[in-house]
Amino acid sequence: MSATVVEIVKSKNLKQKPNDDKLGFGKYFTDHMFVMDYTSEKGWIQPKITPYEPISLDPAAVIFHYGQTVFEGMKAYRTSDNKILLFRPDENFKRLNMSSERLAMPPVNEEEVLEYLKQLINVEKDWVPTAEGTSLYIRPFIIATEAFLGLAASKQYKLVMILSPVGSYYTGGIKPVSIKVEEHYTRAVRGGTGMAKTAGNYCATFNAQTKATSEGFTQVLWLDAIEKKYVEEVGTSNAFFKVNGEVITPELSGSILPGITRKSVIEMLKDWGVPVTERKVSIEEIFQYHKEGTLEEVFSTGTAAVISSIGELEWNGQKITVNNNKIGDLSQKLYDTLTGIQTGKIADPYNWTTEVK
Amino acid sequence: MSATVVEIVKSKNLKQKPNDDKLGFGKYFTDHMFVMDYTSEKGWIQPKITPYEPISLDPAAVIFHYGQTVFEGMKAYRTSDNKILLFRPDENFKRLNMSSERLAMPPVNEEEVLEYLKQLINVEKDWVPTAEGTSLYIRPFIIATEAFLGLAASKQYKLVMILSPVGSYYTGGIKPVSIKVEEHYTRAVRGGTGMAKTAGNYCATFNAQTKATSEGFTQVLWLDAIEKKYVEEVGTSNAFFKVNGEVITPELSGSILPGITRKSVIEMLKDWGVPVTERKVSIEEIFQYHKEGTLEEVFSTGTAAVISSIGELEWNGQKITVNNNKIGDLSQKLYDTLTGIQTGKIADPYNWTTEVK
Repeated sequence: MSATVVEIVKSKNLKQKPNDDKLGFGKYFTDHMFVMDYTSEKGWIQPKITPYEPISLDPAAVIFHYGQTVFEGMKAYRTSDNKILLFRPDENFKRLNMSSERLAMPPVNEEEVLEYLKQLINVEKDWVPTAEGTSLYIRPFIIATEAFLGLAASKQYKLVMILSPVGSYYTGGIKPVSIKVEEHYTRAVRGGTGMAKTAGNYCATFNAQTKATSEGFTQVLWLDAIEKKYVEEVGTSNAFFKVNGEVITPELSGSILPGITRKSVIEMLKDWGVPVTERKVSIEEIFQYHKEGTLEEVFSTGTAAVISSIGELEWNGQKITVNNNKIGDLSQKLYDTLTGIQTGKIADPYNWTTEVK
Repeated sequence: MSATVVEIVKSKNLKQKPNDDKLGFGKYFTDHMFVMDYTSEKGWIQPKITPYEPISLDPAAVIFHYGQTVFEGMKAYRTSDNKILLFRPDENFKRLNMSSERLAMPPVNEEEVLEYLKQLINVEKDWVPTAEGTSLYIRPFIIATEAFLGLAASKQYKLVMILSPVGSYYTGGIKPVSIKVEEHYTRAVRGGTGMAKTAGNYCATFNAQTKATSEGFTQVLWLDAIEKKYVEEVGTSNAFFKVNGEVITPELSGSILPGITRKSVIEMLKDWGVPVTERKVSIEEIFQYHKEGTLEEVFSTGTAAVISSIGELEWNGQKITVNNNKIGDLSQKLYDTLTGIQTGKIADPYNWTTEVK
């Protein structure tokens, strides 16, 4: 693989880098970005690294009206010996193409775009933060740019990759969070776009999220839209339940995002000999396990937070506390192992990390 | 009401106007647009008319990642005595605010924005086309502009209004169209965003639309996502069925867009003494009426096409022909009356039109 960026335009005004303890999530962006355009006649053309700068689009661009867009989220980590590692980036670009298929958008060459990303990170390597829990968040996204208000897939697109040094997603770190089961709003339904990483899925959750936050919860748990019974996701993460030694996670029904952390957790559990089952799981069943004393741990998985321990769960007026509102041993082991592999602290037996050289 | 646009910046390079017979839909845009910004501290500020020009946004703008946006569609018509009429624009801005509420976005002052629109149309009055069936399509939209990747409602927005001279939406005019009932994909579900005019609802339909077109259909008919049984919308229009003298249209369930043409049709039918019922209606029921010989007319309503006659309907491998694939008398009367009122050809007994002076 030797895809080279056609052009690198260096920024003349480098920004001051924020302190590692001030990063937060998605607030600061590096000095450069990657841009590549697509037309239906020429395909993907003009890959280039440019200064981080505004995107200028016709007001009739399809993205503004019909929301044709997909994105990915991934991270680069600095190791103690100053290497920069990516975690399963091939999976992210594979999912990007899967999302694009659902949104009637053209695929990218996954290997080439990964090479472009590595070149971008190389230009920005001083932006990969060093403090514990920090990383360089990577946001590739494709937007439909054709200036046409007819209801049809755009004939022009722009792929952009931006980078943002980030701290922990949850300001409280891996302290267990309090989750409310959402009863009114729904996130996705079969036949819809729930399995794709596309903008419309996310803005649809803001009202529920705001309401949950105002009631003192960190996130909502989404039930399926059809029966309002089965667990789908927690916020924008995948849900896991440890019940009597077995780990259960909702099966990929078509309305659940196939998380890469989810997939990694399942693979690790299998490797460790922990029974893990992907199946439909109802919220009623979870509350029943709690009543019987067999609900041992609840956690969610995602790129931003990696593993998030869930200490409290409210549904239908009942609130249950899981594992005395402490992070469980298995959740902790998953977090330590995953972040250990991601940051090069422990050996990577799965060949999941890729060094940016 | 005397909201004045703070600033009008005239374009120095006026475009050549396309011929009325070449307009199509949403391809040409006028010389100017309206722009107004919002910040959570200051509210809506700096309303202005500027040359039609690219919108420049930070690559991390919320619209690109989480799709927080709403829009409207409406038309300005030229009358034979050279007046310019808007059709129920107050309803559009009311719906814009209703959509914004669902998307966790700030409302606009409906009356003020209507005044701004009138000022914009005044600047662009020569762009309102004159030929039969043509109009000036108006697209107000609001996009979330804050540069922040955290999952939360944006604190900054931009309202833009652009204008596009258009011909008939369907190139075949009001000739009856062929519709396929979509069995796999879904458009919306209760608790989701189906009742709001927001971008994510539209890109979600492109795959189904493309498939239907390749199979020779003009549009798809959407069933409810839960039981896959009840009629929701046709393409992006509201569906109507005339059965044994009675007109039936799906009730606003929460996943159906409350169309302004839909509302107008219901009001006209009531005024005419035609029985009209808003209720759940299953596709099975419609096919049963056809079998019994009581399905008299099928049509859909929307701003772009006004009334679209449906001549063929395919579901589950069966294809039925409605009214010998000819436009029905009631559909024709609704079309003639509505477009007559819109273009000032016939008196407006409902006070639906507003002149742009």
